[in-house]
Amino acid sequence: MPLAALSRDLPPDAAPLLADLDRALAGVERVFDEHLASDLPPVADLCRHVSRYRGKMVRPTLVLLAARAANPSLEFAHTHLALAAVCEMVHMATLVHDDVLDEAATRRRAPTVNALRGNEPAVMLGDYLIAGAYDLCASLPDVRAARRIARASMILCEGELLQLHHRDDWSVDEDTYTEIVDRKTAELIVASAELGAAYAGADDRAVAALATFARHVGIAFQIQDDLLDLTGAEEVVGKSVARDVQKGKLTLPIIHHLAASDPARRADTLRLLEGARRREAAHLPADASAALRRALAATDSIAHARDAARSRIDAAHAALGTLSPSPARALLALMADNALTRTS
Amino acid sequence: MPLAALSRDLPPDAAPLLADLDRALAGVERVFDEHLASDLPPVADLCRHVSRYRGKMVRPTLVLLAARAANPSLEFAHTHLALAAVCEMVHMATLVHDDVLDEAATRRRAPTVNALRGNEPAVMLGDYLIAGAYDLCASLPDVRAARRIARASMILCEGELLQLHHRDDWSVDEDTYTEIVDRKTAELIVASAELGAAYAGADDRAVAALATFARHVGIAFQIQDDLLDLTGAEEVVGKSVARDVQKGKLTLPIIHHLAASDPARRADTLRLLEGARRREAAHLPADASAALRRALAATDSIAHARDAARSRIDAAHAALGTLSPSPARALLALMADNALTRTS
Repeated sequence: MPLAALSRDLPPDAAPLLADLDRALAGVERVFDEHLASDLPPVADLCRHVSRYRGKMVRPTLVLLAARAANPSLEFAHTHLALAAVCEMVHMATLVHDDVLDEAATRRRAPTVNALRGNEPAVMLGDYLIAGAYDLCASLPDVRAARRIARASMILCEGELLQLHHRDDWSVDEDTYTEIVDRKTAELIVASAELGAAYAGADDRAVAALATFARHVGIAFQIQDDLLDLTGAEEVVGKSVARDVQKGKLTLPIIHHLAASDPARRADTLRLLEGARRREAAHLPADASAALRRALAATDSIAHARDAARSRIDAAHAALGTLSPSPARALLALMADNALTRTS
Repeated sequence: MPLAALSRDLPPDAAPLLADLDRALAGVERVFDEHLASDLPPVADLCRHVSRYRGKMVRPTLVLLAARAANPSLEFAHTHLALAAVCEMVHMATLVHDDVLDEAATRRRAPTVNALRGNEPAVMLGDYLIAGAYDLCASLPDVRAARRIARASMILCEGELLQLHHRDDWSVDEDTYTEIVDRKTAELIVASAELGAAYAGADDRAVAALATFARHVGIAFQIQDDLLDLTGAEEVVGKSVARDVQKGKLTLPIIHHLAASDPARRADTLRLLEGARRREAAHLPADASAALRRALAATDSIAHARDAARSRIDAAHAALGTLSPSPARALLALMADNALTRTS
């Protein structure tokens, strides 16, 4: 649990919050599993498999912490557990579909649904998870959550489609990159924070501050993902590295490098990228990997991406600073820092 | 337009209804296109392509006719156009994803999204359409539509997953077949009728009658689809025939045939089916096709499936009979009959 790891950096008055959060997250898992329970054994089997992908529960944690940061006296009840489960369900649906798009074989050290059962059940299971998320949303007493989640899902899909449109497009600039990431990764994280706060009775100013916080954290989170794809160790990251390069997906270090290179170096790197793209193997060969790292080092592109992520986290802290101090706010600040230091 | 073709069998007092319906369906198309409009050109392009798949608008027509059958004085306004667009969007999403699952190359004589752009954009576009449907639902003044559509979507996915689970399972019986079809095909048609009626202020009895009507029509519609896959002419059906056989999908005539055959005939047919399944070509060779038709004829299995569809339509008429006579009810009755006689 990342929360346990973070808790040593928290003030002692955060202990009750951590205990509440642990209990609430267990409740979120229960709501998640119960809501997807199907009386059809093949469907129930697939859902059980998906529960193995459950990782850091970033989105549910954000729903709960945003709620508590906005309203420190809030007791977590069904509405917040359901909102948290909804955000995790939408996220799981995108993971299952992403794995189909990426032809990924493993996820959190378990085989992906597509690897295990084929693409067809994986596409349908993703659809089932999305439908489950809306169904749970629509069971809430008012329509705000359904509206926000549906809107976030549309924007998320637009981001994915924009990214696919620019696949193998080596001329993508940082603005386009940010637009893709903002939609594809940040939007659902923003919706998580907004919904948590809004259903805790937060005023518009607090909801907006938490949304700004979440947007910066989401973008930093994706930049760190890009960095791990290029610099991570597979056994730590828990999935294949250099997959982005092999799938023709441009990441921030490479976008920066191509823009910062003279024509000769740019041509060398493009040859390297296109070679990686053509390979069918699951791994980039060691020499290509080393050449890519050397190229990125020559333009300080890894450092540039780290700086970009750092600035986002600074901006996230600034947004948090407009809220009253509380244990939940302190924990959100630690979550933001963790987006930069995480290794998986 | 199937409505124009049907109208000659309608009483003269149906003319105003037909004019209203035409106008309303044009409105549904407008709501559909406007709601999916994206400011991202690659997304807008894909949505424009999908609008080419728009066919008979069965689900929107049902929304509108169920509304008018339940409440003959209802004027079609935004709520009903939006409900109709929602049902069509969910349907389009399933078509786009089905084409990925089926590796289909054409749909309504146009190339499929997967054939044109690859599986990844097709999966994401389907997700975008589903999200658009929920978003439009959630814009309605109350939460009933969001609940019904989310529930229908879950059941629809369960049906697809159950069908995938039974792929290449030559022992599927008629009960399992009916369970799959009821979820995969009928459920959204039922939801269309229920929503149309409920938002027209129908009482529970009328909503239930229209739901029963729609369930029988939906199942008959799928049986007719099965029949067209085995007996249709490709140029009329507008998509490849014998695809179901080649994809290992059991259809009612084949299920009946296998159950009605002695062990020797059953073994012959299974050899034929497995041969078709292994083939990569888009078409079943003429000799295999002819052998399959002979086998089905020997057990009267085409006739059995036609009878099953006919009984469903009889039951649909019986359900309609509990409503007061009206031009909308007469048109629903014709739609039901058309499910049996359609050739595409």
